Amino acid sequence: MSKGTVYGLGLGPGDPELMTVKAHRLLTSGKHVAFFRKEGRPGRSRKIVEGLLPEAVIEFPMEYPVTTEIPLDDPRYNQVMAEFYEDCTAHIRQLVEAGEDVVVLCEGDPFFYGSFMHLYTRLKDVVPVEVVPAITGMSASWTATGAPITWGDDVLSVLMGTLDAQTLTARMRDADAIVVMKIGRHLEKVRQALRDAGKYDRAWIVQFASMEGQTVQKLSDLESKATPYFSIVIVHGQGRRP
Amino acid sequence: MSKGTVYGLGLGPGDPELMTVKAHRLLTSGKHVAFFRKEGRPGRSRKIVEGLLPEAVIEFPMEYPVTTEIPLDDPRYNQVMAEFYEDCTAHIRQLVEAGEDVVVLCEGDPFFYGSFMHLYTRLKDVVPVEVVPAITGMSASWTATGAPITWGDDVLSVLMGTLDAQTLTARMRDADAIVVMKIGRHLEKVRQALRDAGKYDRAWIVQFASMEGQTVQKLSDLESKATPYFSIVIVHGQGRRP
Repeated sequence: MSKGTVYGLGLGPGDPELMTVKAHRLLTSGKHVAFFRKEGRPGRSRKIVEGLLPEAVIEFPMEYPVTTEIPLDDPRYNQVMAEFYEDCTAHIRQLVEAGEDVVVLCEGDPFFYGSFMHLYTRLKDVVPVEVVPAITGMSASWTATGAPITWGDDVLSVLMGTLDAQTLTARMRDADAIVVMKIGRHLEKVRQALRDAGKYDRAWIVQFASMEGQTVQKLSDLESKATPYFSIVIVHGQGRRP
Repeated sequence: MSKGTVYGLGLGPGDPELMTVKAHRLLTSGKHVAFFRKEGRPGRSRKIVEGLLPEAVIEFPMEYPVTTEIPLDDPRYNQVMAEFYEDCTAHIRQLVEAGEDVVVLCEGDPFFYGSFMHLYTRLKDVVPVEVVPAITGMSASWTATGAPITWGDDVLSVLMGTLDAQTLTARMRDADAIVVMKIGRHLEKVRQALRDAGKYDRAWIVQFASMEGQTVQKLSDLESKATPYFSIVIVHGQGRRP
């Protein structure tokens, strides 16, 4: 029997119209759809495709065993997560070896800080896997600000709010254009790093880019000390322009 | 009379199936379509939409008055290009003020090192303009390598091959993951900068990502001293992974 294919399917930033034609085709004809979610939640990626899946689709929700209960640097975290990924992989592999295609829903672009890579590294050598790229959340964010992120020779650096303050500041200082993701409760550290790099006044924050409830404002106008998961800080480059 | 809208329409990396559902909708119902091209060429963005435009569409090719004939740092370059953008803008503005929608075709993502921004800055305060984001060429490139570009806390830096060697090396040294665009005849400088930053052995080059003739290889396996416009160098991050 010939094997099926696993599709690591990028869904883009949230607006269903910003999905690719290819993603739309694979979803509307899909038979098996897998997706990550927190226990008891509908799942963010699953919400994006609401109304698109065929009625007879078989869903495989992959529920994270932990999210923030165990710290990232605790060895138990890696162990629990590794077992979880192995279990998910085993189920998907079984389906694909029986000849079925399985679409794995991925927010944003699968190969850009995505969770799919944990399945991908475990599946790519045993069954056919195809990754479908998509618009990143950062593209939707800079588009929402109404100004180009980069011009001419601008250097763009993409930074995670989880980095230490010193690294953040150094990398912000060296870049012309900046994107900061994974901000959440690291917001005050990110603000201070931008101040120390002399770029705070040029920083914008976009919440829920391309989704319901999208907001765009100067970071200095945001009063809270934390920000939702879907928040991206943008500092625009100032490159050459005729 | 109510004004129309200018759509800065991102087409993505080249494969028409990687266009968004929104781009597809705007193209198949478009009446006026504008695009940049070199004199005597069909235009790269125009080729991507071949077969999608309605029969009655009115095309507005915007032909660059110069490409490499005048050096970028010659003041005449800026003057000639500024006049060209003013002329394009005047024509588009006239259509939109007469109530027409105009779709401007953009390769990749319009706000990410795109040419559309030169029209955008001249139009945004006078007529309604909507920018539609798209998949970047770099996303298609890292997808083509079959490995995630970034994991965990990786710092990603996007660099132009047109930067000086010292800046290239310094920024490459500081980043975990690297994308280099606008390489062309700067290939040897980019190679040397990667060597000096200790990352040459991890570098891949993708030519024509998601297009006909796509190639993926280790940069060290590429023998030529220049590379086509659609070439992107990729160094993958090595971040945390359970």
